[in-house]
Amino acid sequence: MEFSRMRSLRKTVLLAIVASVVLVVALLHSWPTRAYTTVDVRQRPGPIVERHLEERLPEPDQRSANIPYRLKESVAGLLARNGCVCEGESGGVNLPFAQLLFPRVSAHPLHTAFDASELEEMKRRRAKEYQSFQMRSQTPVDMLIVAEANNPLQYPTQGVEVRPLKTILIPGLALQDLPRELYTVNFTSTLGVFNVAAEVEGVKVKGDGEMHMTLMSSLLPNLNRQLQFVSYTNTLFHPSTADTVQFETEGHQAMFIIKIRHRVTPKLYNTGPKGEYNISALVTIATKTFLRYDKLQDLIDSVRRYYPTVTIVIADDSENPKTVSGPYIEHYIMPFGKGWFAGRNLAVSQVTTKYLLWVDDDFIFTANTKLEKLVDVLEKTTLDLVGGAVREATGYTATYRQTISIEQGEEEEGDCLHMRRAFHHIIQGFPNCVVTDGVINFFLARTDKVQQVGFDPRLARVAHLEFFIDGLGSLHVGSCDDVIVNHATKIKLPWVSQSESDKTYAKFRYPPASSDATHTKNGLLYFKNHFQCLTHN
Amino acid sequence: MEFSRMRSLRKTVLLAIVASVVLVVALLHSWPTRAYTTVDVRQRPGPIVERHLEERLPEPDQRSANIPYRLKESVAGLLARNGCVCEGESGGVNLPFAQLLFPRVSAHPLHTAFDASELEEMKRRRAKEYQSFQMRSQTPVDMLIVAEANNPLQYPTQGVEVRPLKTILIPGLALQDLPRELYTVNFTSTLGVFNVAAEVEGVKVKGDGEMHMTLMSSLLPNLNRQLQFVSYTNTLFHPSTADTVQFETEGHQAMFIIKIRHRVTPKLYNTGPKGEYNISALVTIATKTFLRYDKLQDLIDSVRRYYPTVTIVIADDSENPKTVSGPYIEHYIMPFGKGWFAGRNLAVSQVTTKYLLWVDDDFIFTANTKLEKLVDVLEKTTLDLVGGAVREATGYTATYRQTISIEQGEEEEGDCLHMRRAFHHIIQGFPNCVVTDGVINFFLARTDKVQQVGFDPRLARVAHLEFFIDGLGSLHVGSCDDVIVNHATKIKLPWVSQSESDKTYAKFRYPPASSDATHTKNGLLYFKNHFQCLTHN
Repeated sequence: MEFSRMRSLRKTVLLAIVASVVLVVALLHSWPTRAYTTVDVRQRPGPIVERHLEERLPEPDQRSANIPYRLKESVAGLLARNGCVCEGESGGVNLPFAQLLFPRVSAHPLHTAFDASELEEMKRRRAKEYQSFQMRSQTPVDMLIVAEANNPLQYPTQGVEVRPLKTILIPGLALQDLPRELYTVNFTSTLGVFNVAAEVEGVKVKGDGEMHMTLMSSLLPNLNRQLQFVSYTNTLFHPSTADTVQFETEGHQAMFIIKIRHRVTPKLYNTGPKGEYNISALVTIATKTFLRYDKLQDLIDSVRRYYPTVTIVIADDSENPKTVSGPYIEHYIMPFGKGWFAGRNLAVSQVTTKYLLWVDDDFIFTANTKLEKLVDVLEKTTLDLVGGAVREATGYTATYRQTISIEQGEEEEGDCLHMRRAFHHIIQGFPNCVVTDGVINFFLARTDKVQQVGFDPRLARVAHLEFFIDGLGSLHVGSCDDVIVNHATKIKLPWVSQSESDKTYAKFRYPPASSDATHTKNGLLYFKNHFQCLTHN
Repeated sequence: MEFSRMRSLRKTVLLAIVASVVLVVALLHSWPTRAYTTVDVRQRPGPIVERHLEERLPEPDQRSANIPYRLKESVAGLLARNGCVCEGESGGVNLPFAQLLFPRVSAHPLHTAFDASELEEMKRRRAKEYQSFQMRSQTPVDMLIVAEANNPLQYPTQGVEVRPLKTILIPGLALQDLPRELYTVNFTSTLGVFNVAAEVEGVKVKGDGEMHMTLMSSLLPNLNRQLQFVSYTNTLFHPSTADTVQFETEGHQAMFIIKIRHRVTPKLYNTGPKGEYNISALVTIATKTFLRYDKLQDLIDSVRRYYPTVTIVIADDSENPKTVSGPYIEHYIMPFGKGWFAGRNLAVSQVTTKYLLWVDDDFIFTANTKLEKLVDVLEKTTLDLVGGAVREATGYTATYRQTISIEQGEEEEGDCLHMRRAFHHIIQGFPNCVVTDGVINFFLARTDKVQQVGFDPRLARVAHLEFFIDGLGSLHVGSCDDVIVNHATKIKLPWVSQSESDKTYAKFRYPPASSDATHTKNGLLYFKNHFQCLTHN
């Protein structure tokens, strides 16, 4: 009896073991295996990318060396120079009010933000950070490619794009060659592989699934049909780059790039019900305050007269912060004296509406402060930011429009930044509005664009145009002179004694030189933005 | 006597008048006159831009209609479909722990964030905002251009760039035509004008200074020499756009674009003296806290054990905020319950160092929390952000790596968002690190990149991967498992009663449904990012 029970027990155990083994083997077999490839993302200098065109007129080759030409100075003079020179305008009429009527351009070398003792070290550090930045931001997309003349190859020169690690058909490929016995084309890439989505009769495919693929056929129509099925798959992941494809046939070659990147995801905002502009749903007012609670309260009261439910976000770095409260008021307390741009960055970081309106804490809303007009401009144009006008007690109204341009300098020295009181064009359909690059501190803007540019918290004290400099290329800026806010008086009336808070305010607002030179306006332009010179009028 | 005095007086007056007139005339003459042109920046649909390649296999034309081919399913199946379908994986083993061992993909339609009553209105508003976004972001740079075969024209297909309102020479232009009596080429553009920087003998130039220019010559070498001096000047201002140039000769044409944009200004940070990594100069620790001052203090104490002078930025939206102070501590008070991502956005908006380290307020630093290792990764690679690992009390350590991809859907419905627990590659030179798209809430990152992406303040409560979704395409993300921070226990020990603050924390941390549906996670994905579906495992 016992022996048979033991045998059946052993059998059961054996069966269980076998079953487990089979299960484990099945598990291991079905386990998704993936050989992870490595990727090299270390910073290294890439191929020399010709990002900026030579200003020098092209050297003639043998054939054209003897062909005479005459320079056209009016055009040649507009071409970029090989570096930038830090100089303003000299001479001019030297009368009183001359600077007011005929503002001359002055030039400011920026390395002067640093002591002579620290300048060398700063230059070295800046150069190291700049090279790192260049290595990270270079892309084959900016490389100069010239299409050969009389090339039998037809191919796409731009517009070919694939999502990272995905597959596309390459459009527009064809060969229009003279009659031959055998037609051959081949493809080479570095960040992905080629293949064919269909195999056409009479065409031999070699290297499908690899970085180098060849198609061969004695029948040209068949080869061209096959070329309509060529696919590209990105295999080396990068969120935003491009692969360079060499496309060749006997005696001729072509080069084009395939962009590898994600779809641009939109960042849309809820706008409230349709119909008239619902300012409370569309706009948040943002400001920064420091020791001027009375002026701040005047601002809030004036806003509420016209917009009782619009949210007001207040960043406050006063020493002994007071409570600022009320419906639709958001008050943020910062460490004492943290700073002007830090406060601006804080305030805009909290906005949840489609637009934000920047105001200084000593502005006063009036019946002329029609935010609906500014909203209308941004709703109907491609502008990202539109400034208004600020009216002083004297009646003088300013829009402070500035154009900003950057002239490339030698790499070791840095670029030249040029700012002028000017604008580019008047806006069609909005005769009171113009397109420019910088405006006064009273503006309505798309929240997502302002948050993307940001106010650099390293700027503790006076700063203004630095925001627009950082926004160059991202922000499309406009300015309208028919939406006006009042500026609470700054005139020191002799019979009004300066209050304690006014004195402290003045001490912080117009401070002595900072200890960290890269956190001053000029030090930051020098180090952060790689400028050598600032010219303005 | 009187008479002569009157005459000399009258003479003086006359002389004065004449002098004034002359002066005024001279003034008016020298006054810089500028006729301001208008620019049309109103939002309008542009030419149909083919941003996304058709997945359909190309229709054959007459000649190739009869050429047989055989579909290669393994490749054709990888091509994008015409829309995206919101479906997960079905079936699979339905055992306990199955989801743990074999995580199945589940699909979540996002419109469910809205009540049936408001969905139609939300769809309409989203469509309107999306069209606006498309009009603002389309650019000729993404247009598909195919180069003709056997074109006698030589021209640049990419890499030609001009600063707004500036002038360049167009490189790489030539004509290599068969012998003719007269060679003609012409240029057409829409945002600028053509000219010649030098006039070559034997070539007639017509339309110089205009948007359409023609060059004619009977001598081909002379025409080619002239083509080396062709200039383009941008005249219609836009901070970031491209002009489409048509370049033609008899019987052939070519099209290429000239990018019009500012130089990319770098945003460099001071790094401190060279040598070993100076963590205090390079890194700022950022966190958000809510009602957990004891845990926050534990975090601070643990940080100080290893990094006594690193700055810690704390965003705090507790109801009755307590003082959190100490050297190198920056404490920011927010309106009560303003929210999780608002707090994160606030904290990062205040960072002034090159890198920021995100930590949750209940982390504990240990000897394994070597920030130098993370700094080394970002200093030596092109990564923008690198996550570490978080160790629970049980010993379980998580890196929470996620890959994220977007599949284009039909415009009315929205796109599909796919997230998977996975990574792309191992990083060469850093065997403990991989490249991925999303990581755990313990990471070191380039401050400028994080500030540029931002944490959307509309997300008040639970949210995490939304930051990485917003960062898709901008952030190059990595994850290393050898830099570990501890997580203060979350296990509810039965003999420890839940404190009042713990109870309030739980109420806010795991809240009931919000009233504003677009501010919920799914509502925001639907509206803001234009998704219809989220799939994940």
